[in-house]
Parts: sequence; structure tokens; C-alpha cells
Amino acid sequence: MKRREFFKTASVATIGAAAATTLATPAIAQGNINWRMVTTWPKNFPGLGVGAQRLADRITAASGGRLTIQVFAAGEMVPGLQALDAVIDGSAEMSHGAAYYWQNKSQGLSFFTGVPYGMTSRELTGWVRHMGGQEIWDEIYDQFGVQGFLSGDTGTQAGGWFKNELTGVADVQGLRFRTPGMGGQVWAKLGASVTNLAAGEIFAALQSGTLDAAEFVGPYNDLALGFYQIAKNYYFPSFIEPGLATELVVDKAKYQELPADLQALVKDVCQAEYDNVAADFAANDPRALQALVSEHGVQIRQFPEEILEAGAKAASEVLAELREGGDALTKKTAESFIAAFNVVRQKTDGTDSLFLAAREKYFTLS
Amino acid sequence: MKRREFFKTASVATIGAAAATTLATPAIAQGNINWRMVTTWPKNFPGLGVGAQRLADRITAASGGRLTIQVFAAGEMVPGLQALDAVIDGSAEMSHGAAYYWQNKSQGLSFFTGVPYGMTSRELTGWVRHMGGQEIWDEIYDQFGVQGFLSGDTGTQAGGWFKNELTGVADVQGLRFRTPGMGGQVWAKLGASVTNLAAGEIFAALQSGTLDAAEFVGPYNDLALGFYQIAKNYYFPSFIEPGLATELVVDKAKYQELPADLQALVKDVCQAEYDNVAADFAANDPRALQALVSEHGVQIRQFPEEILEAGAKAASEVLAELREGGDALTKKTAESFIAAFNVVRQKTDGTDSLFLAAREKYFTLS
Repeated sequence: MKRREFFKTASVATIGAAAATTLATPAIAQGNINWRMVTTWPKNFPGLGVGAQRLADRITAASGGRLTIQVFAAGEMVPGLQALDAVIDGSAEMSHGAAYYWQNKSQGLSFFTGVPYGMTSRELTGWVRHMGGQEIWDEIYDQFGVQGFLSGDTGTQAGGWFKNELTGVADVQGLRFRTPGMGGQVWAKLGASVTNLAAGEIFAALQSGTLDAAEFVGPYNDLALGFYQIAKNYYFPSFIEPGLATELVVDKAKYQELPADLQALVKDVCQAEYDNVAADFAANDPRALQALVSEHGVQIRQFPEEILEAGAKAASEVLAELREGGDALTKKTAESFIAAFNVVRQKTDGTDSLFLAAREKYFTLS
Repeated sequence: MKRREFFKTASVATIGAAAATTLATPAIAQGNINWRMVTTWPKNFPGLGVGAQRLADRITAASGGRLTIQVFAAGEMVPGLQALDAVIDGSAEMSHGAAYYWQNKSQGLSFFTGVPYGMTSRELTGWVRHMGGQEIWDEIYDQFGVQGFLSGDTGTQAGGWFKNELTGVADVQGLRFRTPGMGGQVWAKLGASVTNLAAGEIFAALQSGTLDAAEFVGPYNDLALGFYQIAKNYYFPSFIEPGLATELVVDKAKYQELPADLQALVKDVCQAEYDNVAADFAANDPRALQALVSEHGVQIRQFPEEILEAGAKAASEVLAELREGGDALTKKTAESFIAAFNVVRQKTDGTDSLFLAAREKYFTLS
């Protein structure tokens, strides 16, 4: 491994209180800065965990080792869902995860990961980078002394694995479905009995009959977890996760103590990895889906229109509750998101979708 | 301007023959490396020219000035369409443009910008970054001693400005239409009388009656050129440009003489700007379109199905001619592109498009 080789030769002295002095002179003159990145992902988790490691390696490489990042998978230093707290309490300088994991800190954070029936990955970058989204995100995280950057995206996910076929909303009543977060709230409104289980527990719960259905990510990640062995109906698309953006969070004070070039570099590499992870899913989701169908007898299905329509109504309600029921900053976030959404979707609907429809209808290449 | 302020204080000594020695020790010890970037874009050209300048500024900033880039708009050092030659002959170290401008050097280069009815911006990154596209691109550019990186994308473009409404293919016969490149070949097959004019000449040609219609980029760029004053029918989508990727090209030998961290940084910033430019168009194309409609009385129209269908047939023919009629490397590029296209479109068609259709049909936020 390149990273491991690097550690063999690089200095591993950690810069502590002296970091503030690196503002005046290049850090290279004082030895390398060594930072710890805790992540919410299992080691080698396709697309996302791999992306966190690659992001760390790219910062290390592009800084010539002046900022060297060591990555800890979920559980290696702290459990995945304590990654942000580890940055806040100073036991790590960076965390890699998804902002919606921290809804207990601020409900507005969900918007920076993706919300049901909300923005696609490209639309999200329009809002965050060019329509004021980043500034609001900064306001939220300022309260916790951290700074967030988009660092990857899965693109539109799969709708989930179902043991039985769905013919309409009636089939959703009482359905024991694993699907977390705001998406879970949407499915609960449709009548499902929603539970959240950690990735490693889903398979057993499907097998034992505790679950009738489970939604995780998409083909690239789901293939590895083997759900196809038990639930053969794989539904598309996920209307609750039109994209899932990951984040890199850094300790803001320590970030601001970095020399300006390293601050810029961290931001640049995060943005590069946003593109890279999304490209990874674009290439590997369909390859994994091919394997699921041709090697594992998976049946690809589309949700009935009745479910899509009821899901949209439920998503509107969930978003309205979030906007009205949260704190002032959550309301501000929701309003900025909605205003931007109503602009960016115009290009998607009026240009992208028209092109895709024409291409699908008329164009084949062989 | 940040860049200008920078130049006031930074060293401007250019590293010449001594550059090779920077491999052994950090360049910072020897003064800054100053590189020139020539571009194919007018100064401050929305999205693309602005993106080239921002890319240069980000490399300068993230390298702490160790690699300082000075940007020349089209015509400032060389005419836009001589940008690549300026890198090949050594008068600049970098060029920023679009690979399909250099079809006269290798026809395969078109695939790295976008082809009629081809890949969207996201699909293109899947192929280039994770399915072998970059490696083939490198093979093509190796012949000229340069290295290319994706550096931006417009997303799906507009179909063009037409003085009269189009009811079907019959209306295209003899239509004097400004549209360049492979897209022009497609429209020629449909019966149009295709011409290519530089951006600055289009308005006058529409006004004088030399042109009946013109296609340029999309709302963000077209608004500034004032076509709406003469042709009120603005057609969507562009089926000939589902995306237009820009490139940064560097002198390969000089690039390889850079310290490894600066090589990594150039690559990282190009990938960051790919995302950033695409996000810029996602945010600003719809805003510009709103202005065109509400302030300038532009009529938004969709191409008739007959034209979309005939366009797809023509695009297949143009691509087949390119694959069969070019050199071995063009054939290899086309075959890699087609194989990847038939994979990545599965996610787009089977997931993204289904989500977008459901969202458009059922979901509104206010």
C-alpha cells in the first residue's frame, strides 16, 4: 500500500500546541503535520470508505507529506457514529461521513447530504458552491467549532430489496423495512414499520424474518452484503435518496492554523474527490447491477406509480415539518435549499431530462 | 483582483533549463516556477473563461506560489485555436480549451469533449476516471508531448436559436445554421446548410440574414451575446452536446519535471474545477434562462420528435464513420467509449431518469 510505505519513511511527530506558529513560516521547515481522520465507513467500503482513504492519500501526496493524514475506519478509533464528536473533542482532526448522521446536533445538516425527492448530486453542488449553501453550512458547523466540505456522492441510489413484489401502497402497510433517516420518515408515512439497523445486522434480520425489506445504498455497495440471497426484488429508483453527499469535517481552529496553501489544498482535494467518488459510482453501480442480475438472479423492478406519488406527498410533509419544527438555522437552511431547488431543477427538467428521454428512445450504439 | 495582487509580491523569475533539478529538492528553495496558460476563451467568458482563470489561481494558491500560473485569454498571446500549438512549440506550458478543437491532430480527441447523443458530464467522468478513458487519452496526447486533464463541463447545452419555429425535418432543409464540429455533421445529415462562425460573428450574421439559426452553448453564455434580439425561438435540449468537457493541457516533459507534490496538485485542482464549472452551469444556466424569458420575451421550445429521431440516426452514422474512418487510436478510443457508454447509461436510464421523471410528475416544493 502506498500509504503504508509512506508512513515507513515519513516523520510521525505530531504537531500539537506549536501548530499556531506554522502561519508565519512554511510548515515544511518544521516537520510534517500529522492528522487523524476518523470515518463512519467500514474499511474498504466500496466508493465511500475507499474514497475517504484516497482523499487522505491525495492530501498527503499533494502536500509532499507536509500534511499527512492517517485514516481510521469505523470502530478503529471510535465507533462510526461518534466520528464528529471525536473531532469536536479533539481526539481527531478530521472526520469523513455524511452530514445527516448528525441530525441530533442540527436538523438542517440533512440538506447537505440529500433529502427525499430533493436535489441530485449535480444540483447539490450548484446550491452549495454557487448559491449560498456552503455559507449556511458553515454557520451551522461554526456552532461546533468545525468546518465541512463536500467530499463525495453516490448519485441516485437504489430503492431497496423486497422479499415480495409491491403492487401499490396497500402492500406497504406494516411492511418491516430497514431504511434510516428522513427516508425512513417518508416510508413510515406510507405505512411501513420502519427500523434502522447497522449495515452488518441487515442480512441476518432479513434471513430470520425480522425484516421484510431493506434499503442500503445501491448495487456497488449492496452486492457485497449479499441481500440478493434472501430478497430477490430490487426496486428502483430511490426517491428518498436522489444522491447522498459525503463530507469531510475538520477542526476549524486547527484548519485555520494551517498555512494558507494547505488550507486551499484540503478544500481542492475534497472537491476533486466529490467528482471522483461520483464517477466511481457512475462506473461501478451498473457493473455491480449486471452481476446481480446475471449471476444472482435478481429481479429489477420499478416502484408502482401509486407509491411514487404517495412518497412525494410524504416527502413534502417531512420537509415542511423539518422547516417549521426546527431551530432558526434549520429554517434558514430549508428556505435556502428550497429556493435553490426551484432554480436548479429547471435545467434538470427542461434540458437534462429531455435529452435523456430522447437518447433512451432513439439512440443505441453498438 | 487576487491574482494581480499576488503578482505584485511574488517572484517572477522563470525557471528554464534548471527545472529538471527541482526533482531532487523542493522547488520552494529555488524560487517560484512561473507558467503561462493560454486559453481558447474570451476574457471573463462565463463559466469557461472564468473557470480557466480560477483554475490557475487555485494552483497558484494551493502551491503557495511555488507554481504560479499567468492566464492569457484567446488572442492575448495566440489566437484561441492555436492554444494547443503554443504548448507543443513551447511558447506556453499550459492550454485551457476543449479537446475537440484539435480534431485535425487526432479525431479520437472528440470523445474527451463530448459527442452527439453521447455521454453526459457524469457519465464521461465514469469512463475517463474509472473505465480506462484517461489512459487512452494519454496515448493520443503522448504523440504530441502533452498531457490532458478534464477541467470543467457545461452540462447539457441548449439546442440553438431559430428565427422560425420547427415543425419537423422538412423545416431543416437548407436551413442556414451555425453549429460546429460533429454536431454540425449531424445537422448537415438532417439537411441543414451548416456553417461555423466565431462567437463574435454570429450576431451580425443572424441580423444580416446570412444565418437562419445559431447554436452556441447555453443560456449562461448565450444571454451575453444577445441572440434573443433576433431569433426568439430557443430550442431544447441540445442532442448534439449532452455535455462539453473542457481540458487543461500541459507540456508533458515540463510536467514530469515538477516535484511530485506539484504534479499531484495540478491534477487535483483540475478535477476540483471539473466539479466547480459544472456546478456553476447548474446554478447559472437556469438563472440566465429565466432572464431570457421574463426580460427578453424568448420562447422556449422543444425539438419535434421527428428531428430528435432523425438526429439520433445521423449521430450513429457520424460516430460509425469516425470509428471506421480514423486511425488505429481513434478506433481504439471509439471502441472504449462505446463499451463504457453502454455500461454507464444503464444507471442513468434505469435509476437517474426514473427518479427525475417521478420528481417532475409528483413533487413540488414551495
